[in-house]
Amino acid sequence: MQKFKVTFLPDNKSVLAEKDKTILSAAISAGVYINSVCGGDGVCGRCKVILKKGQVNEQPNGIISEVERKNNIYLACLTNIHSDLEVEIPENSRLNFDRLTPMELGGRLGNLYSEAEDIQPVGPKLEEGLFKHSPFATKLYLELPAPTLNDSISDLERIYRALRGYEDFPVIQTGLFNIRQLGELLRDSEWKVTLTLGKRNDTVEIVLVESGDTTNKNFGLCFDIGTTTISGQLVDLNSKKILGTKATYNQQATFGNDVITRIVYAGQSDGLEKLHEAVCSTMNQMILELIQENNVDLNDVNCIVCSGNTTMIHLLLSVDPAHIRKEPYVPTANFLPVLRAAEAGININPRGLLSCVPGISSYVGGDITAGVLSSGIYQKDELCMLIDIGTNGEIVLGNKDFLVACAASAGPAFEGSGVTSGMRASSGAIQNIDIDKTDFSVKYSTIGNKKPRGICGSGYIDLLSSMLESGIIDKGGKIKAVGKRIRQTDTGREFVVCFKEEADSLSDIVINEADIENLKRSKAAIYSASAILVKHMGLSFTDIYKIFIAGGFGTYLDIDKAVRIGLLPDLARSKFVFIGNSALAGASQILLSNQAMAMADTLASKITYFELSVDPGYMDEYSQALFFPHTDLTKFPSVRF
Amino acid sequence: MQKFKVTFLPDNKSVLAEKDKTILSAAISAGVYINSVCGGDGVCGRCKVILKKGQVNEQPNGIISEVERKNNIYLACLTNIHSDLEVEIPENSRLNFDRLTPMELGGRLGNLYSEAEDIQPVGPKLEEGLFKHSPFATKLYLELPAPTLNDSISDLERIYRALRGYEDFPVIQTGLFNIRQLGELLRDSEWKVTLTLGKRNDTVEIVLVESGDTTNKNFGLCFDIGTTTISGQLVDLNSKKILGTKATYNQQATFGNDVITRIVYAGQSDGLEKLHEAVCSTMNQMILELIQENNVDLNDVNCIVCSGNTTMIHLLLSVDPAHIRKEPYVPTANFLPVLRAAEAGININPRGLLSCVPGISSYVGGDITAGVLSSGIYQKDELCMLIDIGTNGEIVLGNKDFLVACAASAGPAFEGSGVTSGMRASSGAIQNIDIDKTDFSVKYSTIGNKKPRGICGSGYIDLLSSMLESGIIDKGGKIKAVGKRIRQTDTGREFVVCFKEEADSLSDIVINEADIENLKRSKAAIYSASAILVKHMGLSFTDIYKIFIAGGFGTYLDIDKAVRIGLLPDLARSKFVFIGNSALAGASQILLSNQAMAMADTLASKITYFELSVDPGYMDEYSQALFFPHTDLTKFPSVRF
Repeated sequence: MQKFKVTFLPDNKSVLAEKDKTILSAAISAGVYINSVCGGDGVCGRCKVILKKGQVNEQPNGIISEVERKNNIYLACLTNIHSDLEVEIPENSRLNFDRLTPMELGGRLGNLYSEAEDIQPVGPKLEEGLFKHSPFATKLYLELPAPTLNDSISDLERIYRALRGYEDFPVIQTGLFNIRQLGELLRDSEWKVTLTLGKRNDTVEIVLVESGDTTNKNFGLCFDIGTTTISGQLVDLNSKKILGTKATYNQQATFGNDVITRIVYAGQSDGLEKLHEAVCSTMNQMILELIQENNVDLNDVNCIVCSGNTTMIHLLLSVDPAHIRKEPYVPTANFLPVLRAAEAGININPRGLLSCVPGISSYVGGDITAGVLSSGIYQKDELCMLIDIGTNGEIVLGNKDFLVACAASAGPAFEGSGVTSGMRASSGAIQNIDIDKTDFSVKYSTIGNKKPRGICGSGYIDLLSSMLESGIIDKGGKIKAVGKRIRQTDTGREFVVCFKEEADSLSDIVINEADIENLKRSKAAIYSASAILVKHMGLSFTDIYKIFIAGGFGTYLDIDKAVRIGLLPDLARSKFVFIGNSALAGASQILLSNQAMAMADTLASKITYFELSVDPGYMDEYSQALFFPHTDLTKFPSVRF
Repeated sequence: MQKFKVTFLPDNKSVLAEKDKTILSAAISAGVYINSVCGGDGVCGRCKVILKKGQVNEQPNGIISEVERKNNIYLACLTNIHSDLEVEIPENSRLNFDRLTPMELGGRLGNLYSEAEDIQPVGPKLEEGLFKHSPFATKLYLELPAPTLNDSISDLERIYRALRGYEDFPVIQTGLFNIRQLGELLRDSEWKVTLTLGKRNDTVEIVLVESGDTTNKNFGLCFDIGTTTISGQLVDLNSKKILGTKATYNQQATFGNDVITRIVYAGQSDGLEKLHEAVCSTMNQMILELIQENNVDLNDVNCIVCSGNTTMIHLLLSVDPAHIRKEPYVPTANFLPVLRAAEAGININPRGLLSCVPGISSYVGGDITAGVLSSGIYQKDELCMLIDIGTNGEIVLGNKDFLVACAASAGPAFEGSGVTSGMRASSGAIQNIDIDKTDFSVKYSTIGNKKPRGICGSGYIDLLSSMLESGIIDKGGKIKAVGKRIRQTDTGREFVVCFKEEADSLSDIVINEADIENLKRSKAAIYSASAILVKHMGLSFTDIYKIFIAGGFGTYLDIDKAVRIGLLPDLARSKFVFIGNSALAGASQILLSNQAMAMADTLASKITYFELSVDPGYMDEYSQALFFPHTDLTKFPSVRF
């Protein structure tokens, strides 16, 4: 097969690609990440690139305009390589994998990308004594008696005997790897060794045997693998101290923005492998930075706990998620055995263990189990709700007596996807907007105080609330007002938030009626799911004592404005508690305590999954919520526009 | 590095070997097996080869005579390659890996290489109801309910739920391999699957998930890995029927004849790897033949149980056996976890499990545990003894109340090694000898009725007994008589059993005074070990109800003659019971019953190891046994020469 050299600018990264492969596939091979919401289907138009040199064959599509064509703009996913190429990836089409610092990401209500001390899960913590400090991987220093003719049990049994002197482990397992090392190692170390013990289902595994006393070096990782964002922490398992926290984009975003697109992509030839590699690559890069910044040796990282939605966990383990999206929506596994991290392609100590927080159903994953754990709602006497807002919105209702969960396809609008000027909450995203009621002039602030590149979820909430307040839109979401920022297009009316002259963007930053429709559907999905869940249990919102808001989105959320547009129910604002990334917080508890790990198992079994689509009232409830804030204004007594 | 082509005749196998490598190492690379008792140290003189073409460099040695040098005879282990070579390997120097048929190996007392029906372990069998039929790998056919919206537990939990409906398994484990297959497999098979469940320590593993009902295809293997001989059986795990039995030489013999030489060899660079490969290669070849002859698919072989001495088990698993031969003689592991056979390089179903029968100490291995299991002495009210005769002689004394074991370095003389005309019990070995008391003429029979090539262990017992009876040797083992078959050499006197004219040998088949000394030491070691063990327990031989004789050697043994030379104690001959390969019989019980597997664990823990060398009376007892039959004739009242 003929191959051509494709060079990507401004990275100046080159790769050899077969003739007729797409530019998008060449970019992935080159490690250059191009935006692609639809997963390469040619419908989202996010992967526009500029051809600087070379011959291509462009497949028909309705996305590229005549003007763009003249400027050599192509869709990377639908353009085939026919010669050596030079391709420039404009900023708008790039997936930016720069680490986001907490400073850049500062929001009013805290940071998604918080430093460890900012994450304040409200639930039970180790310090409070609920969970005993008993990490996933424990180190134990042993000074064994040297064998004699009268005490000549084998090396392995000598270790087992000493171990059972400490604790009555029911089943101890040891792999051949450690057994092979044992003879020399025990003698070279003069019978003084450190065991790393890992909890592996209901057994204890001798993960490692090291010479001498290495108990002071025992580290672990916890991760929350989100569809869009992956967050991770490096933890000292002895001191329980979180040494570092990182967050970055999931490189899988190249293959589509939501779990459904990814599941479809996984079904294509080597799609599953590519998705698996993308998540591993993202995590491994984060791990490397975490250990380097903290002077930790990768070999001293002995375990990792991952929470994530069910699809993300399937992809992490290269398990085909196909049936998650097919009725009756059954995943391959909710409870996964403890594995070696290396089996999943995660680089820690090659013998290190990986535990995935058990999930509840196809659309309520281990991230929610971890969230319930860290929020502590499972212990409360009072009725509580946990809302995790994301592309998939998950809602849990309950207390110490019962827990019921449902999931709503909110869509990616509040994550800045599927909306004209939407972008993720990264550098240059407008996150805070105020519109003057008289002249409709706009004040905004952006993440990192950069020139605006687009609008992220919290920006859209502000924008919608301000547009309602200033009368630019009506309660149905139609643009009613007139002014220089309001104009008519082929597809309807739009409001210009920021003209391209003052933006880091090729076009004006706008919101149009289709975008508003999208956002309305998203907020309606989450609100109506919450409402139906409450009703399903024979309760009402007013019975709820606290609502915990979690998720990447949640930390930017202006509660009052979120209530005003009808995303959240109209309750006393004091009832809402932001808990940041509760999935990551739960994972860190599991990492630090086997009791928390056992509790996660209990919770995942205990939480009842309620399938919204089978509730006859759901569509009605949803339709009623397709107004700002709601068709039934008695449900939002505090909201007046 | 310069390489030369070395061609071995008559095989006509060639290999490229580096300059200065030995001919022996080239032969191993070429897959041509040359005899080597000393493991390449240049002292045993077994690896003589004839150089047909090419240049070599011969290291100094005292083995090759002037006549041999003129005939281009070299030691393969001490001769370095200096050009392309053609090397002929004479029959005497070959390791013959032909399968031995039961016919060829017929002896008076049964066959080592018995067909299954000939192996009659006297101990408890499955049929007798002691052990429940519960194979190491069990198949279970499940018709699962298809998931619905109201029953949407994950695929893996669906299987666990069904499994727990059958039996209350405390811990079920499943590897990622099976989880990855599950989604498609369950749906393609319309929720009708067969699980292969394997007992893995105190957990149950889902080893395989297959589409449809495959319960009728479930096979297992049991092996006894001896230092010299490897025996194996293919078993239908459903019907409990033994489908085939094979025995062959352990290809490790190329690296030395006893465990000590092998342990030393394992300590050399890549020595452990070579020994590991040799045992795997031997076993894999046998497995292939067993399955082909029985039309069994290798993928339907789900488990294997191996008994063997402690060193053999270490080598099978590539675990360094170095410390077995160093005081205080501690192995790396006596109890080994259940592994995947593939981890040890054994080719069955890639997911298939391997269990090694637990051993007792460095010199009393799992073969003895299996022997105690299959002999049933652990259940007897009466006092019993088990003697397993081999290079290492193991003796177990006890009954249902106690069991004590010891090991004696008998040396390889009774296995035809370290004695002038000795050979293993293979084609052409003299196994049965009668000497005329008047003219010392010799009548003999050979294995396979071939021209004689040497004398095997049972031949030596006959020979010694006949030489004593006919007055050729005295009770000290000195050759006293005169005659045309008796002659003086530089190193003492020798007796010609068979002149080279009637033999398939370059030289006369003889026994000399040094050989007799060797054999005398061997028999003294076994006898005195048995005597000390009995005395150690405050008992005497007459207290013993039955003596079970086991091991490859045991099946050829003429009990009466073995008593007459003082190898076995002088008890009523009816007290001796031959039980063939008791280690293989025990392994097959373990393969077929988890209860037998649990009993083997219990026995290995229960049997007390008695270190002979610490008994102050052992050397005395041994010295007294260095006569035929013994210095104290009152101990052998029935023996009169």
